[in-house]
Amino acid sequence: MSSNIFFHAGTVTCEERTKLLKQTGATIWFTGLSGSGKSTIAMALEQVLIQRGHLAYTLDGDNVRLGLNAGPKILAETRGYSEEVSKRFGLGFAAADREENVRRIGEVAKLFADAGLFALTSFISPYRKDRDAARKAHEQNKTGAIPFIEVYVNTPIATCQTRDPKGLYKQARAAVEAGKGMGFTGVDDPYEPPANPELTFDATSQATEQGVALVLKYLEEKGLLK
Amino acid sequence: MSSNIFFHAGTVTCEERTKLLKQTGATIWFTGLSGSGKSTIAMALEQVLIQRGHLAYTLDGDNVRLGLNAGPKILAETRGYSEEVSKRFGLGFAAADREENVRRIGEVAKLFADAGLFALTSFISPYRKDRDAARKAHEQNKTGAIPFIEVYVNTPIATCQTRDPKGLYKQARAAVEAGKGMGFTGVDDPYEPPANPELTFDATSQATEQGVALVLKYLEEKGLLK
Repeated sequence: MSSNIFFHAGTVTCEERTKLLKQTGATIWFTGLSGSGKSTIAMALEQVLIQRGHLAYTLDGDNVRLGLNAGPKILAETRGYSEEVSKRFGLGFAAADREENVRRIGEVAKLFADAGLFALTSFISPYRKDRDAARKAHEQNKTGAIPFIEVYVNTPIATCQTRDPKGLYKQARAAVEAGKGMGFTGVDDPYEPPANPELTFDATSQATEQGVALVLKYLEEKGLLK
Repeated sequence: MSSNIFFHAGTVTCEERTKLLKQTGATIWFTGLSGSGKSTIAMALEQVLIQRGHLAYTLDGDNVRLGLNAGPKILAETRGYSEEVSKRFGLGFAAADREENVRRIGEVAKLFADAGLFALTSFISPYRKDRDAARKAHEQNKTGAIPFIEVYVNTPIATCQTRDPKGLYKQARAAVEAGKGMGFTGVDDPYEPPANPELTFDATSQATEQGVALVLKYLEEKGLLK
């Protein structure tokens, strides 16, 4: 078999990946309040892209918060990290921890996009500065700039609080009333909307299908689908 | 356009990805001394897989150590992290830092393999315990076990030290002679060879082509190439 093996010096080129995948990798960054519907659109978009022969992968709390960006408790339990090391590397919800959470997600999304995929990220990512740093990391990627598409899911907080799919707003309000607080975005921690998002999904008047169509149209217009 | 958009509840299934990519995602973990030739084989394998219509991506020092697993200095410079936060999250070469380095790489490889890719990792990853933890994370993946293929690149240290492509062995020996040491694998820090690697590449008698063929044969035999 080894007689049929040929390769050149260096890594696979961006062109080789584009030819194989019929697309140019990019990060599609969904941001919005808890319960705004980010994951619903991201998951629908991922499915529709794959149905059409394109490759996408969603990074969200389900696959990131239990693994790469786990908290101290999980690190101690699954890795046997000491208390000191678990506290050092494990991520909580303090500002520095949230910043590092978003930094790692941005770096992983960048790797996926560099591999040629559409990396969909679905995290509140409440601070503008942190999202802008992820964007900058994509723009300054060593092997060439990678498209970064910020999608603001602008569901009003009243709607998010009514939906409250995981009961988190209720929990956060109770914590505030008890004088403790838990730094929950929209309750006792700020959400800073994007100043110039590539796309805004108006969740009060648009269905999931329309959100998916909005992103697909953008990808086509920018020539990212071949 | 939105009239043509259909999706089901939940995430894209493993079967949908396999159908699109004609492969089952897996992590191929290259381990061995500095200068053993891990990256040479990984890069050649990545190219050959892509030539044959399969999707692979290599995680290595070039794309991980400057981004996701950057050291304190880079975090301070590129992110404006305070000295305290840079030291907390930035990775150096102490045992806990190496463990966290390998943990994050294992978690990211797992995500790539979950997305359907062959995730190739090329890191010394000197400690058996850390590699075994990465394997365990793959076996216990929440949405189903992910194949983990450990490839031991067993180039003898004398050969690695003669090659010394980055001058690191020379630097490490000088540090030891000066009574400082730098915890360099094979000089003043141990390398623990895998006890039961899926594959061993005998770098003293085999060419890169043969290493690539060895892995391809394994992927075929295990039914990971469709």
